[in-house]
Amino acid sequence: MIYLDHAATTPLRDEVRDAWLGAQLVGNASSVHGAGQSARRVLEEARERVAASLGSQPIEVVFTSGGTESVNLALKGLWSARAERRDAIVLPDGEHHATLDAVGWLASREGARVRAVALEETGRIPVSDFRDALDGSAALATALVAANETGTINDAAGLARAAAEAGVALHLDAVAAAGHVPIDFAGWRGSAPAGAGLVALSVSGHKLGAPVGTGALVVSRHAAPDPLLHGGGQQRGLRAGTQDIAGAVALATALELADAERDAENARLEEIRARTVAELAERAPGIVVLGDPARHLPGTIHLHLPGAVGESLMFLLDQRGFSVSTGSACQAGVAEPSHVVMALGYTADEARQVLRISMGATTTPAEMEDFTTALVEAYSRLTTH
Amino acid sequence: MIYLDHAATTPLRDEVRDAWLGAQLVGNASSVHGAGQSARRVLEEARERVAASLGSQPIEVVFTSGGTESVNLALKGLWSARAERRDAIVLPDGEHHATLDAVGWLASREGARVRAVALEETGRIPVSDFRDALDGSAALATALVAANETGTINDAAGLARAAAEAGVALHLDAVAAAGHVPIDFAGWRGSAPAGAGLVALSVSGHKLGAPVGTGALVVSRHAAPDPLLHGGGQQRGLRAGTQDIAGAVALATALELADAERDAENARLEEIRARTVAELAERAPGIVVLGDPARHLPGTIHLHLPGAVGESLMFLLDQRGFSVSTGSACQAGVAEPSHVVMALGYTADEARQVLRISMGATTTPAEMEDFTTALVEAYSRLTTH
Repeated sequence: MIYLDHAATTPLRDEVRDAWLGAQLVGNASSVHGAGQSARRVLEEARERVAASLGSQPIEVVFTSGGTESVNLALKGLWSARAERRDAIVLPDGEHHATLDAVGWLASREGARVRAVALEETGRIPVSDFRDALDGSAALATALVAANETGTINDAAGLARAAAEAGVALHLDAVAAAGHVPIDFAGWRGSAPAGAGLVALSVSGHKLGAPVGTGALVVSRHAAPDPLLHGGGQQRGLRAGTQDIAGAVALATALELADAERDAENARLEEIRARTVAELAERAPGIVVLGDPARHLPGTIHLHLPGAVGESLMFLLDQRGFSVSTGSACQAGVAEPSHVVMALGYTADEARQVLRISMGATTTPAEMEDFTTALVEAYSRLTTH
Repeated sequence: MIYLDHAATTPLRDEVRDAWLGAQLVGNASSVHGAGQSARRVLEEARERVAASLGSQPIEVVFTSGGTESVNLALKGLWSARAERRDAIVLPDGEHHATLDAVGWLASREGARVRAVALEETGRIPVSDFRDALDGSAALATALVAANETGTINDAAGLARAAAEAGVALHLDAVAAAGHVPIDFAGWRGSAPAGAGLVALSVSGHKLGAPVGTGALVVSRHAAPDPLLHGGGQQRGLRAGTQDIAGAVALATALELADAERDAENARLEEIRARTVAELAERAPGIVVLGDPARHLPGTIHLHLPGAVGESLMFLLDQRGFSVSTGSACQAGVAEPSHVVMALGYTADEARQVLRISMGATTTPAEMEDFTTALVEAYSRLTTH
């Protein structure tokens, strides 16, 4: 099996597995006895390492069970802690379903007004339009650092600056970006006033070689979102529950590995990507590469394949041993057109004619050559009548 | 180090670790390709095993990140889905902080009225008083299957029957009980009408040899609590987020091991416990064993030590290499009197004079003999002036 769905989930890295096993201590980090305090030291060291990777202070790192929890905590928590006269949420098109559904719940249950921001054709959020949406009625804004389907990378610093200038709290969803794109929480936050600008940033472990169930929300020291989980008051009271020390160590290890390898690995994947795209252009010129030609995750190739339903292609390729996706795994199984592709200006029918190929650490040039051949054959089979 | 704080957290069991490692598959259970579907089969098999252990149907098992999330999802979700004219929450004294703080938040933010139920001196919830509290204004009720500090085991079946008869939704917190006490979700639920009686039950993995970050909420097919985490619609829409397959397999393995070993292990611990209690009665007759003499977790020994502050004892014992607790780890570090002990009729000063010893799979009779000697010496040192 050739796995080309790393954007859905990545295999656990060996180094991360070993770190996880090595952090299976006896002791609850909230316990006062020596065993508990030893456990706490390991936990806090992991928090420091995660903070160093994400450019935040250690106290700003809140460990969670993953991206969905981080996003929900950020959006619902910031909404709940907002100034009362503010009732709008600034929501770019094409966000991940965790964001869409959390905002949808806030709209239906809490009376939030949703203010959409249209994307550029490349899938980018236009900073000027985003800035225009941030008026005095905006309770909060959210945006992807990198888009999980198109792979397009946004101008996180620019979006954060716009939010800081407008005095609006911003959440950045860095789940697809972390590992591949350097994250600079403090730098992006700049000198924003308390409660405004970049105040929260989500990451997930299983997108970068750490176990499913690990993740973090970076929360500015100057922000106080309401918690989703109440209990023992752990983690600044923002996320109660016995802290997952091994998970924290695993996440720290995965982030550090990604940081150390990023330049070389991104260059490697970019080269395979360019070769694949060139090969497709030659052998199946009807296929369109979506997303931003310059600013994209190097492992992601998002394709519009006119005349072929993505799901049919996916099944044909699966039979040949290639695992690819039609979009977010979180909505997979539901044969709906991708809202992300529609946000790029495509019709619902066209938005069904897409495939997302996401390469990762295990992907080789030979695999992608084989895949390209298989894709061209499958596409030809579906479109030749 | 002699670890006697298994109620705070347990060491990862070897068999569970191996199961976790063996379930590190490549593939997201929400993906449609073959890798995803293989992953989903492993996940659903784990769900079946957890359901079999807890006496529920597989579809009723919702995997979560642990006890705190399960309790918060149950209480807030059932509150949010309640019939509008109902605004009371029936809350026995002495519940865990996850419950207390979630209910406290519902009271302060959502207008829930809290209706307390006093405990018996043994720490038991009197079923008749509980029944009396369940009138037509009760939106939901909650109760511990076994208490995490005293170790007292409640009449779960009786409490569930009372809730069914009153037409009130009941959540049972089985975090401290699971593994030690047989859990029978369907049996306890009986033929309760939809949305009433036992509808939700919380368990946590790290209390029974599975990793921190694993857990489940059993949710009756006939109940629809609102989710805390919105997103990809996984797990009946009750808990969005990429599902932690390895965590699910680990939890299933830990529950099955506990089921298989329960009778022998409980008998073994009960024997050590009885010997320890007899020894203490002889050598330090002022010490009082709290909780129910007949119906308790066999590994838990909760002590009132007149004249000695529990925290001081804990530090002395820690220096001698024994890890014990003054109460719930979730509140440890905060030198407050135990609300659980006060619920047994003790004053605040007395409620500081407590220790909780919690034995587990690794505990030997010799360890407890050494511990008893150390405890008697430490107690004598603190109370002899």
